[in-house]
Amino acid sequence: MTRESEYDVIVIGAGSTGENVADRVRRAGLTTVVVERALVGGECSYWACMPSKALLRPPAALHQASAVDGAREAISDGLSPRPALARRDEIVSHWHDDSQVTWVHDAGIDLVRGQGRLVGERLVEVTSPAGEIIVLTARHAVALCTGSRPLVPPPLAPAQPWGTHEATSAQQVPDSLIVVGGGVAGCELAWAWHCLGAQVTMVVRGPRLLAGYEPFAGDHLRQALHHAGIDIRTATSARQATRDPATGYVSLTCDSDQGQQVLTAAELLAATGRAPTTDDLGLDSIGLDPAALDVDDTCQVTGVDEGWLYAVGDVNGRAMLTHMGKYQARACGEAIAARAAGTEATIHAWSRCTATADHHAVPQVVFTEPEVAAVGRTEDAARAAGLRVRAVEYPLSSIAGAVLYARDYSGHAKIVVDDERQVLLGCTLVGSGAGELIHAATVAVVGEVPLERLWHAVPAYPTMSEIWLRLLETYGL
Amino acid sequence: MTRESEYDVIVIGAGSTGENVADRVRRAGLTTVVVERALVGGECSYWACMPSKALLRPPAALHQASAVDGAREAISDGLSPRPALARRDEIVSHWHDDSQVTWVHDAGIDLVRGQGRLVGERLVEVTSPAGEIIVLTARHAVALCTGSRPLVPPPLAPAQPWGTHEATSAQQVPDSLIVVGGGVAGCELAWAWHCLGAQVTMVVRGPRLLAGYEPFAGDHLRQALHHAGIDIRTATSARQATRDPATGYVSLTCDSDQGQQVLTAAELLAATGRAPTTDDLGLDSIGLDPAALDVDDTCQVTGVDEGWLYAVGDVNGRAMLTHMGKYQARACGEAIAARAAGTEATIHAWSRCTATADHHAVPQVVFTEPEVAAVGRTEDAARAAGLRVRAVEYPLSSIAGAVLYARDYSGHAKIVVDDERQVLLGCTLVGSGAGELIHAATVAVVGEVPLERLWHAVPAYPTMSEIWLRLLETYGL
Repeated sequence: MTRESEYDVIVIGAGSTGENVADRVRRAGLTTVVVERALVGGECSYWACMPSKALLRPPAALHQASAVDGAREAISDGLSPRPALARRDEIVSHWHDDSQVTWVHDAGIDLVRGQGRLVGERLVEVTSPAGEIIVLTARHAVALCTGSRPLVPPPLAPAQPWGTHEATSAQQVPDSLIVVGGGVAGCELAWAWHCLGAQVTMVVRGPRLLAGYEPFAGDHLRQALHHAGIDIRTATSARQATRDPATGYVSLTCDSDQGQQVLTAAELLAATGRAPTTDDLGLDSIGLDPAALDVDDTCQVTGVDEGWLYAVGDVNGRAMLTHMGKYQARACGEAIAARAAGTEATIHAWSRCTATADHHAVPQVVFTEPEVAAVGRTEDAARAAGLRVRAVEYPLSSIAGAVLYARDYSGHAKIVVDDERQVLLGCTLVGSGAGELIHAATVAVVGEVPLERLWHAVPAYPTMSEIWLRLLETYGL
Repeated sequence: MTRESEYDVIVIGAGSTGENVADRVRRAGLTTVVVERALVGGECSYWACMPSKALLRPPAALHQASAVDGAREAISDGLSPRPALARRDEIVSHWHDDSQVTWVHDAGIDLVRGQGRLVGERLVEVTSPAGEIIVLTARHAVALCTGSRPLVPPPLAPAQPWGTHEATSAQQVPDSLIVVGGGVAGCELAWAWHCLGAQVTMVVRGPRLLAGYEPFAGDHLRQALHHAGIDIRTATSARQATRDPATGYVSLTCDSDQGQQVLTAAELLAATGRAPTTDDLGLDSIGLDPAALDVDDTCQVTGVDEGWLYAVGDVNGRAMLTHMGKYQARACGEAIAARAAGTEATIHAWSRCTATADHHAVPQVVFTEPEVAAVGRTEDAARAAGLRVRAVEYPLSSIAGAVLYARDYSGHAKIVVDDERQVLLGCTLVGSGAGELIHAATVAVVGEVPLERLWHAVPAYPTMSEIWLRLLETYGL
């Protein structure tokens, strides 16, 4: 059986990005449908941010209380894995998407379940789970919001390692876990499973954790994770993994300066990055190379006649983060609506139709303990871009708010300033509870608030936000 | 014996405000002396912010851990008062100012201990603790930084109630405590002593807690404190207090709509406001009324020939908060230095010499559980000032970051927007951990970041800072 339907906008992928595109165009009066082959709500809701943060919050809260005299004495035990995992299950609605489906319907958005593929200009074919073929036509736009998927290096595949899906949804705590990868997901999941009781070893190819961040961030985090009991092996490459069918244990062969070593654990997690989900989307049917999807700031795919195709969120590879996908989705939805209404003139940098912040202010929080939070350019990145910058640092641990927050608080902060324009370009913070401090930096970077004015933004005493005063003082204000 | 000395700048009062004035002028190359009759470091360090926040942090940390599944199960007891009080003692350096004195000396600032009084133009007389008289002459400026002192209503005086000094330094937990006053200090100290184990009753004259804040803030906090077991009596006036010499217990007679009632408790705290410490400063010797000290944005006292007198921090009554005192001090120090150098032209609104933010963006955090944090104008205050505003609210409890932070998270947020200029005028947040969220609002208000640009300041998912996205969406972006 074949059905056909025509909509103003077709959205492929009903994760948070797709939901936001659909919601924005719907609010602008356009008709829209989302196509989803798995759960409505997407990776973030079920197998990424939400479950991982649900697992990371209990150890953070317990750690923070344990660091305060008067509270510490009330704690007689370690983290309880069972209730922590149960809360995680609750946070992900036990991997059912009913409430998200209700939201979609209430928002006036149609939903078609199945794998969506482009089969021509403005034409999407959906294969439903029952094998039914539905052909959808878009009057104005098709938005690809299919996100990204974890990459598993082929040499690890024979061991059937956990990806982030399994590492965020596992129901049992393995007694030991090897984590391959020292990026955000690797650090967060290593920390989560360590806190839940696994003996964790991290195998990291590069010289430090959190490549791409200010170097001090990875170094600081490494020290904390090591101190907590995680075995961290940097400058070490995973070469080959196998799983013993009898014991179920994994053996991982690694190379480093010290030669070859074989690690054994109950479980192996490949946290080795993600790739945009562009395969099986029928991009070739319209002459596009799935490996080279290029978009402008409205997320319009370049090289498509009449510009009816958009790629939004992880799938375009600009900034693979839930909040940036949602941000792009809002901008893209506005752009689609503006073009449909013939008001393209409203589209310019920093307008509501463009994801301009992708180039300037992408915030990210690593929910370990301590947390790492960063936005904007690192010093190295700014210099590489040819900017005349000055960076200043200050120990977050010296701020009165931090001294009160925890005994032996450990943390650090750095800002990168455009010395010419006297505006903030970037900020990196490490410390317990630092995740909520970064938005002030995001506002300053995006707002291009001159430092001389920022000086008048007085932080309340004694909060940790007083780091702003100290950083600006150190800069010379 | 009489000594004499001449300095460029004389600072009376070595609290955080005085220290900052002295530090700023010293860095500008001027000679300076601070006069202190009590402890160097002032109220904030020993009898206000620091000890109160030291007492408030343990219950906050314990409360937060208790609200998280997986952490909760590890907690087998309530707060331990002894270590909490001991940590408080440590935070206030056991009421010794050695480290602050070292800082003063290292900063190149002279210190004279004793009560300083103006005795003429640019002339300060100090009576040392030993009764010695020291006469100091200022070449450029005298800065009064004497702070404020707690006001105890005369009808409460016979019971010898605690003021904030006693309530932040007590070594024993009274079994019961009546707190008169529902402002910031009243709420914080009621909460602290409740958590330490006292049975607390609050007597509040007005209809709600936290007068001057957005009404929802006081209502929300009241509900939380009531739910925790604090007996809160609003619209109730304290009439008369007495202390039974035999039992040591206090009786407080109160009036309300329900008639007269008598409350009894082991201790009584008068948290009924503070007054600038302008008496005993010799202001009359130069023809000034101590009750009507008026300053401009550089904190220069108006009506003084040649403008050599400054009043900075609590003593000028502009914004009686440690961080605003320090802010004024930095501005005032710069202004004194600019005038001494003959570069007055650098003094203008939002310059480094003016405390312009006093009029626009005074942040404050109430360190209860939940926390209350606010900056800028309330909706009522903005309307009263004749501004065309629109306010929007959003439940902080609905933010994914809050759902992850605690089970049954309770919180709320409101922003006030200048509808004409499309900039943020004020923000109020209530919720656990909300204190660190307010600085982003302070940056937005001070930076006058247009809402359309603020829209591009993407909060990291899933932090509580995502409240910004929801508030702006609700506003209509």
